Amino acid sequence: MPEIHAARRRRAQEFIRAQDADAVLITAGPNVRYLTGLASSNAALLLPADGDRALLATDSRYTGAAQRDAPDLELLTERFIERALAAEASRRGMRKLAFEAHEMTVERHGELAARPDGIATVPFGRMIEALRTVKDAEELEKIEVACQLSDAALARVLPQLKEGMEERAVALLLDHQMALLGAERPAFDTIVASGPNGAIPHHAPTGRPLRRGDLVTMDFGALHDGYHADMTRTVAIGAPAGWQRDIYDLVATAQRAGIEALADGVEAGAVDAAAREVIEAAGHAGHFQHGLGHGVGLEIHEAPMLGYGRTGKLSDRVPVTVEPGVYLPGQGGVRIEDVLVVTAGGGARTLTSTTRELLVL
Amino acid sequence: MPEIHAARRRRAQEFIRAQDADAVLITAGPNVRYLTGLASSNAALLLPADGDRALLATDSRYTGAAQRDAPDLELLTERFIERALAAEASRRGMRKLAFEAHEMTVERHGELAARPDGIATVPFGRMIEALRTVKDAEELEKIEVACQLSDAALARVLPQLKEGMEERAVALLLDHQMALLGAERPAFDTIVASGPNGAIPHHAPTGRPLRRGDLVTMDFGALHDGYHADMTRTVAIGAPAGWQRDIYDLVATAQRAGIEALADGVEAGAVDAAAREVIEAAGHAGHFQHGLGHGVGLEIHEAPMLGYGRTGKLSDRVPVTVEPGVYLPGQGGVRIEDVLVVTAGGGARTLTSTTRELLVL
Repeated sequence: MPEIHAARRRRAQEFIRAQDADAVLITAGPNVRYLTGLASSNAALLLPADGDRALLATDSRYTGAAQRDAPDLELLTERFIERALAAEASRRGMRKLAFEAHEMTVERHGELAARPDGIATVPFGRMIEALRTVKDAEELEKIEVACQLSDAALARVLPQLKEGMEERAVALLLDHQMALLGAERPAFDTIVASGPNGAIPHHAPTGRPLRRGDLVTMDFGALHDGYHADMTRTVAIGAPAGWQRDIYDLVATAQRAGIEALADGVEAGAVDAAAREVIEAAGHAGHFQHGLGHGVGLEIHEAPMLGYGRTGKLSDRVPVTVEPGVYLPGQGGVRIEDVLVVTAGGGARTLTSTTRELLVL
Repeated sequence: MPEIHAARRRRAQEFIRAQDADAVLITAGPNVRYLTGLASSNAALLLPADGDRALLATDSRYTGAAQRDAPDLELLTERFIERALAAEASRRGMRKLAFEAHEMTVERHGELAARPDGIATVPFGRMIEALRTVKDAEELEKIEVACQLSDAALARVLPQLKEGMEERAVALLLDHQMALLGAERPAFDTIVASGPNGAIPHHAPTGRPLRRGDLVTMDFGALHDGYHADMTRTVAIGAPAGWQRDIYDLVATAQRAGIEALADGVEAGAVDAAAREVIEAAGHAGHFQHGLGHGVGLEIHEAPMLGYGRTGKLSDRVPVTVEPGVYLPGQGGVRIEDVLVVTAGGGARTLTSTTRELLVL
């Protein structure tokens, strides 16, 4: 879709002109992909402040992909892409180059700054990341498909969960089902945390077997055409104890409060606060130590971040996760996470559809 | 194994003193893991030039892992780890801090450099990466296990390959078998390139079905306890045509030449040249556009790089890949890749054991 990428580049050009730069050198991989269509581990874009003579550089491994996915762009095939683009900027008479200071290393920047032509460099900021928060229809569809693949994989795995199965085996089943359903790959390392391990938000699956009386938290998602899904469900193996049902109900209530707070124009921090207050009021303030959620798209974690004290307003077509949790050290934990997209009419549409009732297996 | 990590830190301290710095701030993830034992996406190490008061910082998600894997280190649990370590350096009266300029972004460095206490920063260089090239016995064993898992997965998948199976399905089988065998996860995105796709060195698997008359290149590897395997085999679906057997034999001969050139004290560039000359002499100079190989360890690609014009000597206990290829645009390609470890006695020990004969399926 070259027109989509050209339109995105035109929006980016406004930021370049606002900084009074001649061009920007885009080096963050997801940003290059967003502005050109090319997915590559070694590509950069020289985007002038005006006109449509943007220049894409990549190495010979990606020449074919660049010709296919970014046919509208002038292409430079070089091993040292930043050096080549800086030289081209100089040839075009550019004097002031914006760059992505949050991605470029000090070492690479030193090389740019040491050029004999004395091009000045200025930090561009997270301008492309800001553009990326609001998704177009095509992006929302890709995220929706990624979420559907994740839901479908879980639906196939849930009937297979049973006592004695290791955490690692459960993660493997989820990854395998996502792949069989057509996912590019898991969107991130799948988390399966059973029993006391559930108290560790980022637990890596182990050989611990599921036991009767466990809560089991599964945090996983599919990658589809570059776009990420991210969902979490906590299930019970056998009838849950009172404390388990209590924290499950609490987290579910907190999640509903967070979801209800999602709306066009709402502050990100206010959404976190809506869910957090529920957990704090129940005396678990110290047991929910992470932010409520985050944007998803070409990266698994991207702007906007929904966390304590975070600023910035949500708006139409911004997909975010809502994922409160309660973690009791040594005992266990619960997290429930969905992807929702904020809509102009207020409220939010849920893209992950698995039930949020406590499933007892 | 705290003693191993302490010994590594003592070797690193020599570089700090050589730079006349008070300490180094280690921020590259694999380097932090190498020096501390902690695997984390958000950890950093403040290592003083002298003494054993190194300070590890990570956020609350990794506190448990840090206490378990780096019990010998003082631990700082903070959300903004670099800011916290810089403040601590200042409290300890440090004035000159080395940092990893090849990892730290301009933005993060700007924050360090803007501190009111005026700590000076100097680039540390790739000193830890240099230490990491030579593996200890424990590391070599982990790489060997990763290679064995990869071999075993391929042995299970080969009998299942047949006409009509899609590239994606083959990749899925490899990934799944590695996981079933106990791999942490695939060491990188598995490549399966069939027929004309074999001419693309970094081809991502598609829905193209394997056809009679195809060569099929599979480039994959297992991750085991943080250490990477990397191997490639090219097989034929049905009896190969003359040109297919010719380029297979050529690549196999080139690989043998490269492997025979591996020895303690040999220049990295000379190993590449030994294999490349074979391919060039056969008139395929333009059809082998990548380097011959690379080190493997905590990263899939690490020093030393075996490429055209690369400098630096190989030595005992350095594992590298040897992976020549011939790629004929529009037609197909062959690549054969093994992991070998250079030994003091001269020569190299092969860690991947699948046959290099052309398998006709």
